[in-house]
Amino acid sequence: MTTSDVASTWDAERIRTADKEFVIHSWSNQGAVNATPIAGGLGAWFWDYDGNRYLDFQSQLVNMNLGHQHPKMVEAIQAKAAEMCYIGPNYAERSRAELAELMAEVTPGDLKMSFFTTGGAAANENAIRLARHVTGRQKVVARYRSYHGATAGAIAMTGDPRRWHAEPTPSGVVRMFDPYTYRCSAGHPDPCPVCTGGPHLEEILQYEDPTSVAAVILETVTGTNGLLPPPPGYLQSIRETCDKYGILLILDEVMAGFGRTGEWFACDNYDVTPDILITAKGLNSGYVPLGAMTVNEEISGWLMKNKFWGGQTYAGHPLACASGVASIEIMREEKIVENSREMGQRLRAGLDGLAERHPSIGEIRGLGLFQGVELVKDRSTREPLVPFNAVGPAAAPMGAIVAAAKKQGLYLSANNNVLRLTPPLVIGAEDIDLAVGILDDVLGIADEAAATA
Amino acid sequence: MTTSDVASTWDAERIRTADKEFVIHSWSNQGAVNATPIAGGLGAWFWDYDGNRYLDFQSQLVNMNLGHQHPKMVEAIQAKAAEMCYIGPNYAERSRAELAELMAEVTPGDLKMSFFTTGGAAANENAIRLARHVTGRQKVVARYRSYHGATAGAIAMTGDPRRWHAEPTPSGVVRMFDPYTYRCSAGHPDPCPVCTGGPHLEEILQYEDPTSVAAVILETVTGTNGLLPPPPGYLQSIRETCDKYGILLILDEVMAGFGRTGEWFACDNYDVTPDILITAKGLNSGYVPLGAMTVNEEISGWLMKNKFWGGQTYAGHPLACASGVASIEIMREEKIVENSREMGQRLRAGLDGLAERHPSIGEIRGLGLFQGVELVKDRSTREPLVPFNAVGPAAAPMGAIVAAAKKQGLYLSANNNVLRLTPPLVIGAEDIDLAVGILDDVLGIADEAAATA
Ligand SMILES: Cc1ncc(COP(=O)(O)O)c(C=O)c1O
Ligand SMILES: Cc1ncc(COP(=O)(O)O)c(C=O)c1O
Repeated sequence: MTTSDVASTWDAERIRTADKEFVIHSWSNQGAVNATPIAGGLGAWFWDYDGNRYLDFQSQLVNMNLGHQHPKMVEAIQAKAAEMCYIGPNYAERSRAELAELMAEVTPGDLKMSFFTTGGAAANENAIRLARHVTGRQKVVARYRSYHGATAGAIAMTGDPRRWHAEPTPSGVVRMFDPYTYRCSAGHPDPCPVCTGGPHLEEILQYEDPTSVAAVILETVTGTNGLLPPPPGYLQSIRETCDKYGILLILDEVMAGFGRTGEWFACDNYDVTPDILITAKGLNSGYVPLGAMTVNEEISGWLMKNKFWGGQTYAGHPLACASGVASIEIMREEKIVENSREMGQRLRAGLDGLAERHPSIGEIRGLGLFQGVELVKDRSTREPLVPFNAVGPAAAPMGAIVAAAKKQGLYLSANNNVLRLTPPLVIGAEDIDLAVGILDDVLGIADEAAATA
Repeated sequence: MTTSDVASTWDAERIRTADKEFVIHSWSNQGAVNATPIAGGLGAWFWDYDGNRYLDFQSQLVNMNLGHQHPKMVEAIQAKAAEMCYIGPNYAERSRAELAELMAEVTPGDLKMSFFTTGGAAANENAIRLARHVTGRQKVVARYRSYHGATAGAIAMTGDPRRWHAEPTPSGVVRMFDPYTYRCSAGHPDPCPVCTGGPHLEEILQYEDPTSVAAVILETVTGTNGLLPPPPGYLQSIRETCDKYGILLILDEVMAGFGRTGEWFACDNYDVTPDILITAKGLNSGYVPLGAMTVNEEISGWLMKNKFWGGQTYAGHPLACASGVASIEIMREEKIVENSREMGQRLRAGLDGLAERHPSIGEIRGLGLFQGVELVKDRSTREPLVPFNAVGPAAAPMGAIVAAAKKQGLYLSANNNVLRLTPPLVIGAEDIDLAVGILDDVLGIADEAAATA
């Protein structure tokens, strides 16, 4: 058979069959996977081979900030492919150099040099090793409600229960609680004193020996594990505590960065600059695998005199970097950050309206187009609509909401009892309103589940 | 400035300056980096902005099996970019399904389902976690002369001294010696009984408790750390010992796979099928970051009934998978494996000729276009031309050879006292002969260093 003969045989059925037989899907029992073949996408929408269209309120894995098939991204990738797909990381390369220079420009404060990886986990792995070398210390403080990636070093810092299945993880990670003011782990009233950050970290450091701690790593706004923006003062107090003990602050903005929160970076909302900033996803919307570790002036200076002990065959991949350059240019030209802020406000106003009609809405929180809706059985007790890490019937109401929304063409995601609303940042007002309308409808399922609980 | 104004300012000088100021390079002291900007490449050649052309006898990081800018690869990437750059790994997608099906076809034995990552390290990380879950055991046996990647789990299995700078690494890794018949670690004569594999592994298992070992992981042919093809019977005896104790055999063919050794996979040379095969690099020549873990029937069956606890945002990346499909088609259409075998023979004949004239050549070893030349001070004592892991003046002769070759337009790589000859598999006879000629010239440096030692 020639290539084109083969091509013609790849219809939806063949894709479905080959996928089922040969593809291993992430975090899944393969016997239970029945994946829909997707035919295409454009902007905030994508569609399957049966003509079903979905408004992408996940941006897939919260990476497609510029939406599907942005024509300028496609063009930039095609142009770079014609010029240079790959050259080794030991060489200087135009797109790599340009993206690194742009990173220094768009990131806050004195963040300067960048190491480019193929994704978020690898960038976090490099950050931790570098922090250990720079400080000469070993321990890392990380939070429970977090996801930092699936490689051994990244999942050790992860709090998410997916970590349980990688245990025993490498030692040296100390856990800290989260700025989850709505559910203070100590049962304190909202706002909670532990959730103010610094004091809680201070207590941990006292027991751990602050001079043994290399870094504190945080998602600036927790993504997967509950969509938790920190309360006012939180980040500043963490920053101050780190400074007091010579501990590096690593902010993981793989999900929260690049306009998602209505600012270029989530930390811009709080006027805090990390020592190391980790990005991926929105960096180039994932059109080509790419992640970045960007370090401040001081660490950049350290690196001029000391060896950096990290590497990947595809570090600083030219095709990936070219798509990153194009993405930043598009963000500037099309005022993507501003649109995230405006559409975020519109979405938030819509959600606030829903809260008046739906008693199952416990809290709405977020920044820009990074919004979460926490569902409860009872607003006064705040009992979650489904328990933490529930599976099967216990988790059913959340699954039913997501499924009902999908049936109406809205692609939503949920984690525990929190709906995550994270559409592409190119989305328009009409699509925001459409989503709010569908949410209004499907939240009836939550209200009912709460009422009969 | 508009985009095109900016574009025009990116000449070699600006690339060099921005690279130096903003890019963190792998495994380097950034102050010592002075990276040459590369302007382009085609086939086995690439060039800088000053018109210097280099015959790529490294295939960059031994990944560009199809050489630079293969027109059909470029076309496939451009076509896929126009169609679908990305969709989440939870969906079925045409190129992902097709590549997975192709992997089952081209890999040996009953290897069946694939998980696609963004590179070699991530694939190895997933293999180890999966092996632990499948067997319910924790320990892993890995070899000293090995490189499996730089993330915490992969570097823990790595023997290469780069590991030292990631220590303490995660526990559970047991080290085994290498089939380095030329330098048996126990001082045995060549061929060495330890280097036969099975007996050595048996002794280790006796001390470690064989029922606690999940997997043995090997580079089928060691790449970076000395270019070591195993002696006859070695792999079979490892396979048998693994089977005897229910231990999984993981073969890391990130470097050795996809035609490099003159067979589709290095293990095809030995008629041994692993339980898990790891690939990257030659899988798609690195045009888009991609790696794969392919598992046999039994593990595929296990995965149908148990959860796979791994994932990456860019797992099964459509653009990357499309380039993998194109690469396999090109390998078939252009008889790349056959060319690797033929050109490998031609290269080997050339090297054998050099050995007659250059007393510094201690051993030549390899398969296909995966050849290594071990340089010595004295053939009878086998004293290495430079010591293990040497830096500075002690390593000077190897650096001088590589530099002299580069000056003559041959891009070579070396590790310790071994030159690695790994050109793109699309290379022609003329370029092989050209390289042998240049090697003839620069090996004078080695002979001189040996004579004056
Ligand atoms: C905050 C955060 N960090 C890191 C990662 C890991 O990134 P990757 O999947 O590219 O390894 C993710 C992925 O979802 C993430 O959300
Ligand atoms: C045998 C082997 N395994 C794994 C790796 C790691 O692959 P990556 O750099 O894509 O993580 C390499 C890289 O050189 C390798 O040679």
